[in-house]
Amino acid sequence: MSSGSSFGTLYRVTTFGESHCAGVGAIVDGCPPGLNLTEDDLQTQLTRRRPGQSKVNTPRDEKDRVTILSGTENGVTLGTPIGLLVANEDQRPKDYGEMNTIPRPSHADYTYQMKYGVRASSGGGRSSARETIGRVAAGAIAEKWLRETFGVEIVAWVSACGEIEAQNINPETIRREEVDANIIRCPDLAAADTMIQKVTQLRDEGDSIGGVLTCVARNVPAGWGEPVFDKLEAKLAQAMMSIPATKGFEVGTGFAAARMTGSDHNDPFVMKGTRLGTLTNHSGGIQGGISNGEPILFRLAIKPPATISKAQSTADFDGTPQVLAAKGRHDPFVVNRAVPIVETMAALVLMDMALIQQSRVRPGRV
Amino acid sequence: MSSGSSFGTLYRVTTFGESHCAGVGAIVDGCPPGLNLTEDDLQTQLTRRRPGQSKVNTPRDEKDRVTILSGTENGVTLGTPIGLLVANEDQRPKDYGEMNTIPRPSHADYTYQMKYGVRASSGGGRSSARETIGRVAAGAIAEKWLRETFGVEIVAWVSACGEIEAQNINPETIRREEVDANIIRCPDLAAADTMIQKVTQLRDEGDSIGGVLTCVARNVPAGWGEPVFDKLEAKLAQAMMSIPATKGFEVGTGFAAARMTGSDHNDPFVMKGTRLGTLTNHSGGIQGGISNGEPILFRLAIKPPATISKAQSTADFDGTPQVLAAKGRHDPFVVNRAVPIVETMAALVLMDMALIQQSRVRPGRV
Amino acid sequence: MSSGSSFGTLYRVTTFGESHCAGVGAIVDGCPPGLNLTEDDLQTQLTRRRPGQSKVNTPRDEKDRVTILSGTENGVTLGTPIGLLVANEDQRPKDYGEMNTIPRPSHADYTYQMKYGVRASSGGGRSSARETIGRVAAGAIAEKWLRETFGVEIVAWVSACGEIEAQNINPETIRREEVDANIIRCPDLAAADTMIQKVTQLRDEGDSIGGVLTCVARNVPAGWGEPVFDKLEAKLAQAMMSIPATKGFEVGTGFAAARMTGSDHNDPFVMKGTRLGTLTNHSGGIQGGISNGEPILFRLAIKPPATISKAQSTADFDGTPQVLAAKGRHDPFVVNRAVPIVETMAALVLMDMALIQQSRVRPGRV
Amino acid sequence: MSSGSSFGTLYRVTTFGESHCAGVGAIVDGCPPGLNLTEDDLQTQLTRRRPGQSKVNTPRDEKDRVTILSGTENGVTLGTPIGLLVANEDQRPKDYGEMNTIPRPSHADYTYQMKYGVRASSGGGRSSARETIGRVAAGAIAEKWLRETFGVEIVAWVSACGEIEAQNINPETIRREEVDANIIRCPDLAAADTMIQKVTQLRDEGDSIGGVLTCVARNVPAGWGEPVFDKLEAKLAQAMMSIPATKGFEVGTGFAAARMTGSDHNDPFVMKGTRLGTLTNHSGGIQGGISNGEPILFRLAIKPPATISKAQSTADFDGTPQVLAAKGRHDPFVVNRAVPIVETMAALVLMDMALIQQSRVRPGRV
Repeated sequence: MSSGSSFGTLYRVTTFGESHCAGVGAIVDGCPPGLNLTEDDLQTQLTRRRPGQSKVNTPRDEKDRVTILSGTENGVTLGTPIGLLVANEDQRPKDYGEMNTIPRPSHADYTYQMKYGVRASSGGGRSSARETIGRVAAGAIAEKWLRETFGVEIVAWVSACGEIEAQNINPETIRREEVDANIIRCPDLAAADTMIQKVTQLRDEGDSIGGVLTCVARNVPAGWGEPVFDKLEAKLAQAMMSIPATKGFEVGTGFAAARMTGSDHNDPFVMKGTRLGTLTNHSGGIQGGISNGEPILFRLAIKPPATISKAQSTADFDGTPQVLAAKGRHDPFVVNRAVPIVETMAALVLMDMALIQQSRVRPGRV
Repeated sequence: MSSGSSFGTLYRVTTFGESHCAGVGAIVDGCPPGLNLTEDDLQTQLTRRRPGQSKVNTPRDEKDRVTILSGTENGVTLGTPIGLLVANEDQRPKDYGEMNTIPRPSHADYTYQMKYGVRASSGGGRSSARETIGRVAAGAIAEKWLRETFGVEIVAWVSACGEIEAQNINPETIRREEVDANIIRCPDLAAADTMIQKVTQLRDEGDSIGGVLTCVARNVPAGWGEPVFDKLEAKLAQAMMSIPATKGFEVGTGFAAARMTGSDHNDPFVMKGTRLGTLTNHSGGIQGGISNGEPILFRLAIKPPATISKAQSTADFDGTPQVLAAKGRHDPFVVNRAVPIVETMAALVLMDMALIQQSRVRPGRV
Repeated sequence: MSSGSSFGTLYRVTTFGESHCAGVGAIVDGCPPGLNLTEDDLQTQLTRRRPGQSKVNTPRDEKDRVTILSGTENGVTLGTPIGLLVANEDQRPKDYGEMNTIPRPSHADYTYQMKYGVRASSGGGRSSARETIGRVAAGAIAEKWLRETFGVEIVAWVSACGEIEAQNINPETIRREEVDANIIRCPDLAAADTMIQKVTQLRDEGDSIGGVLTCVARNVPAGWGEPVFDKLEAKLAQAMMSIPATKGFEVGTGFAAARMTGSDHNDPFVMKGTRLGTLTNHSGGIQGGISNGEPILFRLAIKPPATISKAQSTADFDGTPQVLAAKGRHDPFVVNRAVPIVETMAALVLMDMALIQQSRVRPGRV
Repeated sequence: MSSGSSFGTLYRVTTFGESHCAGVGAIVDGCPPGLNLTEDDLQTQLTRRRPGQSKVNTPRDEKDRVTILSGTENGVTLGTPIGLLVANEDQRPKDYGEMNTIPRPSHADYTYQMKYGVRASSGGGRSSARETIGRVAAGAIAEKWLRETFGVEIVAWVSACGEIEAQNINPETIRREEVDANIIRCPDLAAADTMIQKVTQLRDEGDSIGGVLTCVARNVPAGWGEPVFDKLEAKLAQAMMSIPATKGFEVGTGFAAARMTGSDHNDPFVMKGTRLGTLTNHSGGIQGGISNGEPILFRLAIKPPATISKAQSTADFDGTPQVLAAKGRHDPFVVNRAVPIVETMAALVLMDMALIQQSRVRPGRV
């Protein structure tokens, strides 16, 4: 836990790997036995995450094929730890010559050097987007278990790119197929077109742009989330803010809640079929840190990628002024690639909470 | 950890207590030995947190005097766990008759019932603001250690109340004395006056209002924060989103980053005295999850308090429509009371990260 | 966790307190809701643990009355953390003058000083037997839950005092009433008499004596214990070796297994009523780190108390030779007082394992 | 943590893998940066652990070559997680036909089935000796760090095989070269010969035999170990009792302490060069859960291997009486193979304690 590469209590993932080592991956400890599971179950989200998918992202093309090293037999989980490995195709550290002396502005080159006194030649070490592969694979298992056990559906999409905001997306019904219908993963097609234009233009200028991602988790039963420090929104916030490039997190009304009165913001209770629900969902499906049965809704702010080919005035490690223009081509926009990362990280949080809540149920009481 | 009442790895606080039990408090495990510490060191922040301080908050008046039960002798920490206790003055559960049948909208009454199948007569159990006493006491110790060991200064203030936003507050210089100069803890005096008017008016209407809180931590050395899941911003996000009523968290530019280009957002490096710093601080003092030596800056959205005396149409536990108007007087605004909670929670995160980073340093290398 | 004052994952106890601070106690996080619980449920084991009970122990008489500070209402657990406090009656550090300069041989005075650079005037800090109060109270709750939920019965007794060994005690049937029938807690009455004589004699000589304690846990279902590092015997070993003065732990045949062949040691399976059991129980109820449904059996070696009034040649902190004879009267034997500590520590391990195992059970599968 | 595949707080190892999956391995999180490290540093202990080394062990011959997947560059640790992988050469589950219906007596076949409701065709899942590969690799890194940073030397050896006990081995000077001088790893050559004869005879009879292993850790500074639950002997006990087939653990005098008086057992202080030491070392280098600077001494009881080819009367899963004689050839003795496992597990405990203790030291104080 304490060195930061593990997440979760009962469903616990530990990841490893940098950009140019032999491979990246994870160990999942605590997956319940008896779940049908093969590599194909993980590959879908890994493939959605990988680079080289479209003109709005980096043209690097890596297959990111995952191998399950342990923990299953005959396609069924054994209850033992699941080892997951994705080989790095390009293990030769690139020519990062300049970066060795000039830390990229707003990247992790400088802070890794200050923290460890040594760093990978590829720069920001574990801040690399490749690190997220292990979590996506681990979270894809959690998604499957949540779906099969509780019918939980998690869907994320790009809701803003720069100043362009998507309109009229219904979190109660939106499906992944609609999200994946265009390369920028914004289900508002008109907005998507404008976004793609914007990103393409900035890419051509060697620049990058930020955006907002929205996520919903439907069919989460009431009762998940642990007071006090492990409130559902608190663990979601940690999970989301641990994704590279995130700058903000909000649940339900989020920052808009700051401008509302209690009488406007409160969600009145109302009967929904056989369960008690709420008329509005300003709470985003969480009250007092515990799920209330309504859709869980949250949003993330993602900053523009720091590595740009446009020239920047900055300084090297010695403090000498320098001009830096990153070589090669880089992601001008990452919010669309963050979609599967956010979904699977949400699954990691929810599954852990589900298992903890199950531990309270006395045998025979359910 | 897993039931949520503990926070931190090496500086680890575990809290207990509801509204009407015998007392609330905490155990702090992992405080280094040799720190001068008496109850007075904790009382300042506890007193800033307590209710009954002004017309913009609840008139309940509790002294909240803390007792150090263990872990110190002759005013010095021993390195052993520090037991902290604040007695509850009013241990008789109030007449919560209505709440037993009508869950308060957007409060935790309903979710606690669904989670545990039983709940305290006072309603939302550990979602009560009294729960925060333990953390504030524990965090006040961390603040002292951070200040004495590294010169760290943490200051939070109210930056918005409803639509009223504070202007021209300099995070590099703002002091707690300026924050405490008015009852609403907004160092922009003109804005503060308008805020107080607004809150007073809503209080008279039996309503409440949300707001935004900004916090800075200065003099944090470069190198704190653990990749990947325990990035500094991720643990700050968890810590902040674990505070009752928070709906959003952002670091540095936050959601504004979503609308920026990389060339605008990147913080160029520049020599600052003998250390490498950044010209701008859009990153909020954190890059790749690790502090970079610049001031750490973050903001919280806090929703309007859910318990209001204004009549609300809602339903009881059985789903029957009811009208609920909370009896007694309640906080119309809590952002100002959150100030010491945010500061001490930030201290909990930073101290834990500092100790973990210290563990890496080989004896004799520093 | 990392500073050592917490134990358990889902049923997690954190303790605080030294000999002469204001009080000792614990927080129990993760106790399931709906358990009937009052102070009386905890007091029985606390009273069995307290000093001043007989001539074979220290004559100090402390009442050790426990207060439940939180986590219950109307005698029922709420699922929230249970705060537990026992006030120290004598908070004035005694005249430990000599100990300040002469570390007691085989006590913790020296190591606490080396570890923390400061220490309590009463000497060995948290190595004091008073520290165990918090765990006993927390473990007594676990015992109750285990008994009511699964019918688990845990019984410990003194099986050896010096070279005197108890004979013919049947772990399948032994009851606490039989254990408590004499002051030395050895259910072999003839051996008990000889033990009492031995201890009394050594007490009069200002000396002390070690012994062995045996413990059985009956009705533990098959399936508890987590491979690999948290094997049931591994967590029991940690729990038991964390009790002051323990020098050895063995499960089932223990060290005798080293002299056996596989064909003699293996426990053949055989039908026992409706479940598969084993004909012998050399395994002590655990195979591969997981309970197999047979009684769990283990033994502890406990050293003679280090604080004796007999004169000892030793050295002070500066290394100057000194003769030390402890003032006052001390426990000449502690194995009988360890009985409730061992039982409750075993309960802490078993309850945590039970909850973790329950988390795997899908709703509806039981 | 809670599913048992992780160990340690700051130096934290998580392992994965069964007998016939694709591979076994581990992730080490928290290794300090700047340590010179290549596969060769790990291979020595892995090779000492592997099967097929001599006639007293199983003739299966596996190379067990380890690959470092991440966390180092140019042979130096980066401070990031170290991924470790050893491929399984034989991934086809053998013909375990009988075991599918007849659980091996005193093995883990039955308990894994009861715990998970499913199990690997090879039987006892993670109770397989192959699981220990991950820990040995991780512990070998810890050994190197401990040796280079503090000069810590850890040496284990076989001190008993059945009733044959080794004599005259000096824990203050014994070296690994002496231990490895014969195939049974007993540095008393006369005893070693008799042991080898004994094991060979039992192997020919299709039987097996238990034994005792002794371990010393020298040059451990005073001050390591965390009161209360993470006392040094408590974590060592957990670590050792987590090794397959262990039945007992003792530190210092161990069970012999039960027969001693305090005046005999206490270790008087005496000046040793420039530090305070003890004249005797009955404490085994630990007092109050904290190292005192003397050699740390402990012993393990290891049972005879459960899988034997000699016919045993037992029952199948349905309770029907059966006779079982394991096919193939199996280890008749495992204590000698446990030597590197015990040494590396001790290193895992000590390194974690060292890092935790370092976290307390304020910069500049050392």
